[in-house]
Amino acid sequence: MRAAVAHRGKIVVDDVAEPRPGPGDVLVAVRACGICGSDLHALEHADALLDAARSLDNPTEFDPSADFVMGHEFSAEVLELGPETDGAPVTPGDLVVSLPVMLAPTGLVALGFDNRFPGAYAERMLLTAAISMKVPDGLDARHAALTEPMAVGLHAVNKSRIAAGDAAIVHGCGPLGLAAIGWLASRGIEPIIASDFSHRRRALAAHMGAHEVVDPAVEPAIDAWRRVDGSRPLVVFEAVGVPGMLDRIMRDVPAQSRLCIIGVCMVDDTVLPLIPAVKELSIQFVFGYDPMEFAQTLTAIAEGQLDVASMITGSVGLDGVAGAFTALRDPDDHVKVLVEPSSSGLG
Amino acid sequence: MRAAVAHRGKIVVDDVAEPRPGPGDVLVAVRACGICGSDLHALEHADALLDAARSLDNPTEFDPSADFVMGHEFSAEVLELGPETDGAPVTPGDLVVSLPVMLAPTGLVALGFDNRFPGAYAERMLLTAAISMKVPDGLDARHAALTEPMAVGLHAVNKSRIAAGDAAIVHGCGPLGLAAIGWLASRGIEPIIASDFSHRRRALAAHMGAHEVVDPAVEPAIDAWRRVDGSRPLVVFEAVGVPGMLDRIMRDVPAQSRLCIIGVCMVDDTVLPLIPAVKELSIQFVFGYDPMEFAQTLTAIAEGQLDVASMITGSVGLDGVAGAFTALRDPDDHVKVLVEPSSSGLG
Repeated sequence: MRAAVAHRGKIVVDDVAEPRPGPGDVLVAVRACGICGSDLHALEHADALLDAARSLDNPTEFDPSADFVMGHEFSAEVLELGPETDGAPVTPGDLVVSLPVMLAPTGLVALGFDNRFPGAYAERMLLTAAISMKVPDGLDARHAALTEPMAVGLHAVNKSRIAAGDAAIVHGCGPLGLAAIGWLASRGIEPIIASDFSHRRRALAAHMGAHEVVDPAVEPAIDAWRRVDGSRPLVVFEAVGVPGMLDRIMRDVPAQSRLCIIGVCMVDDTVLPLIPAVKELSIQFVFGYDPMEFAQTLTAIAEGQLDVASMITGSVGLDGVAGAFTALRDPDDHVKVLVEPSSSGLG
Repeated sequence: MRAAVAHRGKIVVDDVAEPRPGPGDVLVAVRACGICGSDLHALEHADALLDAARSLDNPTEFDPSADFVMGHEFSAEVLELGPETDGAPVTPGDLVVSLPVMLAPTGLVALGFDNRFPGAYAERMLLTAAISMKVPDGLDARHAALTEPMAVGLHAVNKSRIAAGDAAIVHGCGPLGLAAIGWLASRGIEPIIASDFSHRRRALAAHMGAHEVVDPAVEPAIDAWRRVDGSRPLVVFEAVGVPGMLDRIMRDVPAQSRLCIIGVCMVDDTVLPLIPAVKELSIQFVFGYDPMEFAQTLTAIAEGQLDVASMITGSVGLDGVAGAFTALRDPDDHVKVLVEPSSSGLG
């Protein structure tokens, strides 16, 4: 089958082995898969990724310098159930989503970051039947593919322990920042201050529920917060993930502020620890979500609580993935670009 | 009066203006004052201190490049109550301690880090009568002076939200690390793993209640934790405060661990944010304590719940402060050195 393969720091379309469902697996045809900022980073910073993977309790055998197929924000149609899938919650023809995790005989597989099993930048892939979730009838496959990044936003808001009476600043209005804004708004957090250099992203931030939206080149988010509030306990969501952001935020915020770091900075970053010390800051790094949060997000999208349609700013076929990676380095042009492996791409 | 003055990066004994109690003040004779690691750092890193001070909501006018008298871990004897001190909780002759904060007409003064009001490396100083606390009868003035650093440990343990069933690692068994160990032990936290290069400090860590004590040159603390536990949720207390510790700890700990940063690193530090991201670490920086924690600590010392006597490893007069600063750069020699301004020093 065809896939967009990460090959030595580049994306190339190639023929790869047809996946065959083993016990407990389901074979699916990918309908749509979002391109994630982490994919762009992973291609550039394979060494850092390996470094982090090795620091985990259960290090994976993932080798980002060898070929692999990315894609972990997907919706797909069930083609075939493998053996030992009795009682699976899905049947052929179903549109499904899944946490990008497979329970292989050798252990957990991080779909999209594995050399053996392809992610969703491919015509077909394998999922674990038992944890696949049927998409509610009528929900567009393209919108269902947004479940994954929107779940990251929900998880971040949960882990931040933000509560009624707190104020929020969201730095960066890419998909994850917008997801956080959507969930913060749904909880009634006010004010939500959003900050992004991109006009298009700022407009989306307001659409998702931010009360005050600023261009940091014109007004720093912290100044906007002081202007419209300045007194509520402050939770700052960092969804940019570039060096220098953490130190800047720590210098700007008042004492006792809480930081929730969603953006993954994959290069060394420098901070002056004395600053967070004298302010008693707390920093919660977040990553992923749990299955309940994922399911809750799918429901919220299906019921129209989160308008993800407006976040989709482009779509490509497999041949367009490499070009889309390039385009996504200029954040002003796009928010979420989908890969639709069965289409030739809509540009 | 005589004082050990911080003068252009050095400690020099000099005559300074005699403090005169204004409204609400009390004039005290310093009996004992601990030398704090922050004092050593502050002398070396005045620029960083200024940087941090300026990042606060209410920046002070403290200028660490101009002369000031350090000393914020003190006990003292009340000499004279100033005007407007009716109802003050102390009277002349009382031995007292106080949070190192003064309520001056111009605002809060951080005693020990102020150019106008002297800290406790002086014969006499001013305190705010209303917040001075009488030391329980019979408690040695030298032990009462340990209230401040021991309160930092209590505050750190409180802010860490460590609970029964969690494990603790304490990096660095200087006064603050030892204080944390003492409070963790009093809460029944088990196991407590303590780590320090110094034999003397390791012996004290065991004395304060650590269950496993390691020399990091022989066995990393994380390995010791895996050896004796390896399964409980882990809270790591960082009480060293040198560059590189934060990144090292983040690489070592399992996912979902919590870090509580007590040691104040006053120089730029480098981290790879991807590491705490994939592990979803949380980092709580702590600084100081609240008045309730300070009072609780004084009571605990007076009642013998915390054995602070063993932590006092030296005593000097004002003339010995400069030499003690030099000696304290070699942590193997000392834990807590007291300045006793009315003595010629015990060596």
